[in-house]
Amino acid sequence: MCAEGLGGGLPLRGESALHEAHMALIVQKFGGTSVGSIERIQSVAARVARWQAQGHQLVVVVSAMAGETNRLIGLAEALGSHPDRRELDVVMATGEQVTIGLVAIALQTQGLKARSYMGGQVAIRTDARHGKARIDQIDAEGLLADLEQGIIPVVAGFQGVSPSGDITTLGRGGSDTTAVALAAALKADECQIYTDVDGVYTTDPRIVPEARRLDRISFEEMLELASVGAKVLQTRSVEFAGKYNVPLRVLSSFDDGPGTLITYEDAVMEAPKVSGIAYNRDEAKLTVLRIPDRPGVGAEILAPLGNAGIEVDMIVQNASRDGYTDFTFTVHRNDFPAAKTLVEPIAAKLGAEGVLCDNKVVKVSIVGVGMRSHAGVASKMFQILGAEGINMQAISTSEIKVSVLLEEKYLELAVRALHAAFGLEQAAD
Amino acid sequence: MCAEGLGGGLPLRGESALHEAHMALIVQKFGGTSVGSIERIQSVAARVARWQAQGHQLVVVVSAMAGETNRLIGLAEALGSHPDRRELDVVMATGEQVTIGLVAIALQTQGLKARSYMGGQVAIRTDARHGKARIDQIDAEGLLADLEQGIIPVVAGFQGVSPSGDITTLGRGGSDTTAVALAAALKADECQIYTDVDGVYTTDPRIVPEARRLDRISFEEMLELASVGAKVLQTRSVEFAGKYNVPLRVLSSFDDGPGTLITYEDAVMEAPKVSGIAYNRDEAKLTVLRIPDRPGVGAEILAPLGNAGIEVDMIVQNASRDGYTDFTFTVHRNDFPAAKTLVEPIAAKLGAEGVLCDNKVVKVSIVGVGMRSHAGVASKMFQILGAEGINMQAISTSEIKVSVLLEEKYLELAVRALHAAFGLEQAAD
Repeated sequence: MCAEGLGGGLPLRGESALHEAHMALIVQKFGGTSVGSIERIQSVAARVARWQAQGHQLVVVVSAMAGETNRLIGLAEALGSHPDRRELDVVMATGEQVTIGLVAIALQTQGLKARSYMGGQVAIRTDARHGKARIDQIDAEGLLADLEQGIIPVVAGFQGVSPSGDITTLGRGGSDTTAVALAAALKADECQIYTDVDGVYTTDPRIVPEARRLDRISFEEMLELASVGAKVLQTRSVEFAGKYNVPLRVLSSFDDGPGTLITYEDAVMEAPKVSGIAYNRDEAKLTVLRIPDRPGVGAEILAPLGNAGIEVDMIVQNASRDGYTDFTFTVHRNDFPAAKTLVEPIAAKLGAEGVLCDNKVVKVSIVGVGMRSHAGVASKMFQILGAEGINMQAISTSEIKVSVLLEEKYLELAVRALHAAFGLEQAAD
Repeated sequence: MCAEGLGGGLPLRGESALHEAHMALIVQKFGGTSVGSIERIQSVAARVARWQAQGHQLVVVVSAMAGETNRLIGLAEALGSHPDRRELDVVMATGEQVTIGLVAIALQTQGLKARSYMGGQVAIRTDARHGKARIDQIDAEGLLADLEQGIIPVVAGFQGVSPSGDITTLGRGGSDTTAVALAAALKADECQIYTDVDGVYTTDPRIVPEARRLDRISFEEMLELASVGAKVLQTRSVEFAGKYNVPLRVLSSFDDGPGTLITYEDAVMEAPKVSGIAYNRDEAKLTVLRIPDRPGVGAEILAPLGNAGIEVDMIVQNASRDGYTDFTFTVHRNDFPAAKTLVEPIAAKLGAEGVLCDNKVVKVSIVGVGMRSHAGVASKMFQILGAEGINMQAISTSEIKVSVLLEEKYLELAVRALHAAFGLEQAAD
C-alpha cells in the first residue's frame, strides 16, 4: 500500500491492487466520530483528496454526525415509547443525509467533483423490515458512471429503499454494511473502514499495554474476535465482506497508519497459532443440574428464552452419566433476572435437581485460524490458566476459538497471562 | 364553519363546503413555530385529531422545526461561503423530513392512522432549479388512496424532486406553496395555513391598536398587502391559490379563532372601499433628474440593477416637460449603496441633471378591491395626509392599491390617520 504519502513504513500486501502502480477503486467509510464536526468533515475531505491525488477512484460512505442518531431517536421517543418503525426510519435517515451533503460540499471546496446519494438514490434496495432491513440488491451503474467522470459519489450509510419506495434503515452499525455491500457491488479493490482505533489488536490494550496491532487477520478470526468483545466492526459487515470476498481494512481517521487488513485465510501467510485474546465481561451463567439426558431437552430449556428475545451465548453440555446431564448456558447480565425466572419452572418440570446461577462470570477466548492445523493450543491455554491458579467453570471450542468461563476477578490476570504465553506482543509476520 | 367544537362564535361562510354537514377535504399547513418542539407537535396532532373527529379528510403539510433550517444552512456555509445548491438542498430537506416523521408518530400516538411523505415520495415534481424550484406537477393518487383508507398523509413542505431524481427545495416559505399546490392537485375544499398570527389585519396592530382582523379578503388584496409589508403568507402561495381557485385560510396554531379566509372577489360580499393599510419601512428612493424623455430610457436605467439582482419596488415617472422628465424608483435600503453606484454613471451617460437620493423614506399603501368601483378613494387618502401636514414624495397606484412615499418620521402618524379615517376599526361585514 503506497498511498497517502506515508513513506516506506507500510507492510506490503500480496493480494490487493492498491500497491500496484495503477488506479484502484476504493470504498472509504467514515463513522460518526470521523464526521462529528465541521473540522472533522474538512479533515475527511482532505484525506479523500490525498487518495484521489494518488490516482485512485473513490466512493465515500458516511454515517450520521456523532450524537445525531441518538438525538433523532430521542425526539421520536419523546412522542411515544414505541414509535412506528417506518416513521422512525424517515426521521433517522436524515442523520446520514445531512452528512452526505456536507461531505460533498467539503470535497467541492477542496476542488474535487463530488455528488451525494441517499440510499434510495443509488439505489440500495432492501427488504421492508424497517430498522433492521437487509440489502437485496444495489444498482451500481450510476456510481460507476460518476467514477468514469472523476466524480466522487458520497453515499449515505445505514439506509436503503424498500420495494414500496419507503426509506429503510439497516440497524445500528449498518453504515459498515453499506460500505461493504457497495464495495462488493462495485467490485472494489478494497473497502476501508475509518474508525477511532487504528486497527484490530491482539487484545484490549487497556488490559495488556503490550497488545499489538495486527497487520492482517482472517474474516473468521475477525468474526470470532468481534463476537467475543473486540467490537471494531459490525459482525454483519465482516460476514458480508467474507461472503463477497471484499478485502476489508480497519484504520484510524485520526492518524495515517496502515490499519488492519481483513482477508481470506489463504492470504495470511505464516499465520500464528493464536491471533488474539478476546473477552466478554458481561456474562451470566445458568446451569440446570441433573436433568434426564434425552433428545430435545436443550431445546425445551432454551425455547422460552428465544421467544422472550434473550440471546444465549455459550452453551455447554457434558457427556451424560447414569442418563442424567448438566446443561449450562450464558446470557448477557442484563438478561439474567429474566432468564432465571423463565428457566426455573422449566427445570422443575423436567425433573432437574435445580438451577445453579452465577452472574459474576467472564468469558476469555483465544482466537486463531492456526488452531485448525496446530494441536495442543487448547491444552496450552488450560495449562497457562492452571499455573495462575485460575479455575475454569466451563469450556467451549469452535474451529478457530477456545473460550473459557472464569470467575470475574480473574479477567485481567487471565488475559495478560495468555497474551504473554502465546507471544502475542511479538510481531508474527 | 362549524369545526373544532368552538361553539357558535364563528362567522358563517357562504362559499365553502366546510360548514355543510358532510365531509370536506382540507389541507392543513403548520409552519416552523407550530412544530418547534415536541409539545407543539403534540398540540398539532391534537388539533388534526379534532378536525378528523368532525368527519373531515385531512392532509398535513409541515415545515422544519423552528431554527432547524438555519442550523443546517449554517453547517453547510461553515464549509464554504457558496455551497453547491444541489448539496445544500440535500442537507436542508432533512429539516422537513424529521418533522413529517415526528408528526406522523404523534398522530399515531393519538390513535390515528398517518403516513409521512417526502416531496419525492408524493411525488411533487419540480424543475431542477435547486433552492428555488417551481412545482411542475403533483402525483396525487397515492395521497387520495390514503385518504380513502382513513390515513392522514403528512407531507414535507418546501421540497420536491427534479426530473433527474434529485431533491429540490422551493425556497424560503415554500411550505405554503406546497400546501396550496397539494390543495389544488387534490381539489381540496380549503387550504389552511397555521401561523403565529390569527389572521390578516387591517394594518399592523403594533402601530394601530384598533387594527381589526379581516374575516375575509380577496386574493388580489392579499397580494397587495403581502407585497407592501404585511407578510403573513408567501406571495407565491397566494398567487398559486388565486390561479387554481383554492380557498385559503390563515389562522393561528395557538388559539382556535376562525382566521382570515382568502377567496375570489365575488365571494366577498359588501366589500368595503379600503380593506387595509400596509406599509414598508425599508425603502430607499432614487430620482434621476431631467433626462431626455425618449423610449427605452427607463429600461436603460433599470437593466443594470436587474442584472445585479437588485429588486426595484415603486417606479414613478411623470409626464414630461420640454422633452425632459424625472424618473423615480425605490429599492430596499440594503441595496441602496449598490443601486446608487450603478445608476450614477448611467444618469451621466443619459445626460441627466443628477441623481437625487433619499434612503429615509417609507411607503404607505391603502389596499381594497372596492377602489375599482368607488371613485374618490385616492383623493380622500391625499386629503387625510394633507390634513396631518404630511408631504407625499411620490404616488403610485394600481387597480386596488394607492401607495405614497413619505418621509420616514411620518410612518406611524400616516398609518393611524388613514386607518381611522377609512373606518377600519369597524367590522364591515
